[in-house]
Amino acid sequence: MSTQGDKMEKVFALIADLKGLSNRMFQKDFLLTWDRSLDELEAVLDVAEVLKELRGLGRTCRVFDSGLAVSIFRDHSTRTRFSFASAANLLGLGVQELDEEKSQVAHGETIRETATMISFLSDVVGIRDDMFLGAGHSYMKEFGEALQSAYDDQVLPRRTTVVNLQCDVDHPTQSMADLLHLKNTFGNLDELKGRRIAMTWAYSPSYGKPLSVPQGIIGVMTRLGMDVVLGDPEGYGLIPEVVELAGRQAAESGGRFQVCHSMDEAFEGADIVYPKSWAPYSVMEERTRLLQAGDRPGLVELEKQALARNASHQNWECTRELMARTRNPETSLTPDGQALYMHCLPADISTVSCKRGEVSADVFERSRIATYLEAGYKPYVIAAMILLTQAEDPVATLEALIQGKAARVKT
Amino acid sequence: MSTQGDKMEKVFALIADLKGLSNRMFQKDFLLTWDRSLDELEAVLDVAEVLKELRGLGRTCRVFDSGLAVSIFRDHSTRTRFSFASAANLLGLGVQELDEEKSQVAHGETIRETATMISFLSDVVGIRDDMFLGAGHSYMKEFGEALQSAYDDQVLPRRTTVVNLQCDVDHPTQSMADLLHLKNTFGNLDELKGRRIAMTWAYSPSYGKPLSVPQGIIGVMTRLGMDVVLGDPEGYGLIPEVVELAGRQAAESGGRFQVCHSMDEAFEGADIVYPKSWAPYSVMEERTRLLQAGDRPGLVELEKQALARNASHQNWECTRELMARTRNPETSLTPDGQALYMHCLPADISTVSCKRGEVSADVFERSRIATYLEAGYKPYVIAAMILLTQAEDPVATLEALIQGKAARVKT
Amino acid sequence: MSTQGDKMEKVFALIADLKGLSNRMFQKDFLLTWDRSLDELEAVLDVAEVLKELRGLGRTCRVFDSGLAVSIFRDHSTRTRFSFASAANLLGLGVQELDEEKSQVAHGETIRETATMISFLSDVVGIRDDMFLGAGHSYMKEFGEALQSAYDDQVLPRRTTVVNLQCDVDHPTQSMADLLHLKNTFGNLDELKGRRIAMTWAYSPSYGKPLSVPQGIIGVMTRLGMDVVLGDPEGYGLIPEVVELAGRQAAESGGRFQVCHSMDEAFEGADIVYPKSWAPYSVMEERTRLLQAGDRPGLVELEKQALARNASHQNWECTRELMARTRNPETSLTPDGQALYMHCLPADISTVSCKRGEVSADVFERSRIATYLEAGYKPYVIAAMILLTQAEDPVATLEALIQGKAARVKT
Repeated sequence: MSTQGDKMEKVFALIADLKGLSNRMFQKDFLLTWDRSLDELEAVLDVAEVLKELRGLGRTCRVFDSGLAVSIFRDHSTRTRFSFASAANLLGLGVQELDEEKSQVAHGETIRETATMISFLSDVVGIRDDMFLGAGHSYMKEFGEALQSAYDDQVLPRRTTVVNLQCDVDHPTQSMADLLHLKNTFGNLDELKGRRIAMTWAYSPSYGKPLSVPQGIIGVMTRLGMDVVLGDPEGYGLIPEVVELAGRQAAESGGRFQVCHSMDEAFEGADIVYPKSWAPYSVMEERTRLLQAGDRPGLVELEKQALARNASHQNWECTRELMARTRNPETSLTPDGQALYMHCLPADISTVSCKRGEVSADVFERSRIATYLEAGYKPYVIAAMILLTQAEDPVATLEALIQGKAARVKT
Repeated sequence: MSTQGDKMEKVFALIADLKGLSNRMFQKDFLLTWDRSLDELEAVLDVAEVLKELRGLGRTCRVFDSGLAVSIFRDHSTRTRFSFASAANLLGLGVQELDEEKSQVAHGETIRETATMISFLSDVVGIRDDMFLGAGHSYMKEFGEALQSAYDDQVLPRRTTVVNLQCDVDHPTQSMADLLHLKNTFGNLDELKGRRIAMTWAYSPSYGKPLSVPQGIIGVMTRLGMDVVLGDPEGYGLIPEVVELAGRQAAESGGRFQVCHSMDEAFEGADIVYPKSWAPYSVMEERTRLLQAGDRPGLVELEKQALARNASHQNWECTRELMARTRNPETSLTPDGQALYMHCLPADISTVSCKRGEVSADVFERSRIATYLEAGYKPYVIAAMILLTQAEDPVATLEALIQGKAARVKT
Repeated sequence: MSTQGDKMEKVFALIADLKGLSNRMFQKDFLLTWDRSLDELEAVLDVAEVLKELRGLGRTCRVFDSGLAVSIFRDHSTRTRFSFASAANLLGLGVQELDEEKSQVAHGETIRETATMISFLSDVVGIRDDMFLGAGHSYMKEFGEALQSAYDDQVLPRRTTVVNLQCDVDHPTQSMADLLHLKNTFGNLDELKGRRIAMTWAYSPSYGKPLSVPQGIIGVMTRLGMDVVLGDPEGYGLIPEVVELAGRQAAESGGRFQVCHSMDEAFEGADIVYPKSWAPYSVMEERTRLLQAGDRPGLVELEKQALARNASHQNWECTRELMARTRNPETSLTPDGQALYMHCLPADISTVSCKRGEVSADVFERSRIATYLEAGYKPYVIAAMILLTQAEDPVATLEALIQGKAARVKT
């Protein structure tokens, strides 16, 4: 375990790195990783780690003396809800949830008006909206544009910024937490170059899981020169534009991107595996259409068909046998030198959370603590996104935190 | 745009003004504007503006190092909920909502007991209760009296105060925000003397909108020497006692108060127009009776009748033609020198939020940003009410804030 | 009323007392009072009183600069919810509720995973789970063990601690608040030795009230050398293990513990009476079985039977006649020198909250303010539990608070 001095040295090194990065995130929304430069993504990782180290040292990370972080969840959530609340609290912000059921939002009010009304004294709005294809990202974009207008019109005293807590297209707080986990597991970002990561579909007894996690992973990992394999059964494709983007980015970064339809093939020689269920793009499109039409019987029929289709792919399970095809002798957490297993949690664990699921109980159990560490980065990644979109000079802000020397818990 | 120096000068001028006002709001509830002296209303405006300027300058407004603001919402709410949370947060208070559905309040517990139990460590309780005629204000009054008893009996260490976030009789946080908007639009309160404000009914495809906004407006504007016109269709009267009060107050302040039953007439020569739907007093009385009796079919029938009656007044819509009857060359936001359009939002905008509503799309759009600015005062008005009922020496409190020079966001 | 100087002297005396106590609560959960030494219980009382005095003096009790207190309520709650929120806020923590309905917890997720996921940046988790016999305490224990593992595995930067806000076995925040009320009513803990406290069942028109209050009372009062009488109708027994524990503890502490089945007998010569309804252990066991089996008709039938059984004990009501059997001339709040009446609230008050209930209106009214004072200790007791499980050196923490001299409300 590292000493306090080591940790402070790490903090100073991260801030030094941050100084060298070109960052224009102040007063901007954080919606998609591919909207941001590689320098900006690195800045997110640096700030997240600085905050994590300072918190670990028992020092305060209070950047705001007061202020509000608003959350809008259009789907059930535990992890993201707590990650956002933790991030906000870490920086000194109170959390206020916009519960659309308890609000008047439904009354024909425009997004423009809602965005303004809840932002007079808010610093950041975190939105999770991943239910409808074509809706979540558009909603966030419109929300951010409304905030920009209100700021330009001097209705808002500050540019309240939007952080995407998961939309139909991307899940940047997840993919960036995953990237930070990889950075720390392999030592640094350069070490990821050429590494093979298998993002694969896996069987789940439920249906309708969002596409944003696999899209987020291929959307960010292809920018780091990695060898990214997307593996899914025929007909389980992601949004075509994102798949194309991944290909382009891989070419630009000197990495590789391929799609295959076999779990065996995807796992072959992988350094990292990320087996996770999702609903096929075509099913999500149909589901969106039926939901919008209020077609209840159609939805029941679609679910039945989709579950039946899923059931024909029960062999897409991350088992000990499949893991044996991977290799990762240097960083492996298992004595047999296998790939790093990743998951955004909660995983469908065969015999534990369901009869048969995404991963066998023994494979998951061997990596359980590593998946917890992976998840533990998320609050800091969100906090970094808030800090970078809200602090005009983030280096000065972090240096002020360090010089303050204030303890988070007084003794 | 004013410089930082200008803004601080404004802050000092406001505090100087505040020093000259006679204010006995410490440890009192803020339930009705007409319970408070004109000096006290001016104190609310002064403090609200000081906080707004300080927040705009990026300075902290943290008056409380810790503390709780409790909210009780007995109706759906977005704006008021966020305004209250923002005000509390601005001053350093955490927010805790009393969700009566999740509580044991229903179990025959007395208001006296509930009030005490949630207030041991609370500083302020914000209540919105506007559903039943004759209920909301009584509830708040009883709540405040319970807090006073508990404080007198040394059960509570401080006199937790109640702020009315909307009741059946008044909506003081709205009317005071509206007044502050008028003060800033016209320059100062003296400039409002003799100005004609038309508070009129307007058509809405919904029914049962509360009376507290128009009542709050005529209840406060008649104290400032304004020429207040209440315009509504025959049979759409407000609570008679409030209408009488408005008349008395106008006489005392050297203003004028009249009721008319024509939108044309009300708008004629107005400096300010506030067209907004509400349910007639008689309908609200009948609705309260049916709700208390649990008469479901009766409620359905009442709604049907009330909507039909509303529909016969669809011409009560604030249109470009009507606006042409107004005049306000000095302060007009439109090149044709028309009245200031006001609304508490959300407005029923014809062709935007409904087929036909309170205001035509073109009139609303021309004033949209002004209505947002109007709404933006509310959090500061609520914060001012909290500060004035909780700080024994509000001038000293504000001066301490300024001398502290602490930034809200550290850099 | 005591002066400020007196209050500070009391604070210093309490801290001096705290220094002399052997306390190993740091990084431990607070689940059952009988898990903790008598010194540790006294430490809770001392810290609670220090915080209460400091708050009363208008001084800040902010121990945390930021941080989260998570609450999990598996039953409706007002008092406990606000007590926990108040305690957290007093110490500087934000509150985040885990609403299991809005979360993904149901999806077959393990307690181990949920506990970890919501605790990355949390300091304390308060849990109320008193619905199922055999479930609440087990859940909290498993939750605490998961947090310990996550801390040991360096997944969590701090040992987040669990505070039991009421389980099926004990209700330590209630019983410790009650004990503090007794300490202050009678002068000090030594004065409680030999005092007779009658914890008795009382009639209520509702059914299924938890056993944790009476169990908590006999579980803690028997440790202080008191003469504890548990009075209930035949067949209304508590969990046998807790009753046995009470007997053992009374023997060890030089006190007395007896069970009787007559309210008259229990009240005879009592210094303190605590008449309160609960469901018999056997009914709670059956109810738990039926709930787990989802046996709806069985539950209806059980409720019917249980209410009928209750109805045959309507004479178990705390009346003026019964109170006349008690005696407590020194500390009595009534001119006739009767026992101190206690209740955890809300009480079922005959003719006020129900036709016939636990206590007659006149008896309750005479003690109403005393029961409010009793309830008022709970937030401070919870805050003390948080502070003692989170601060490595609580004496140093409290001394830092005092030296800081910061005011909670700035003037």
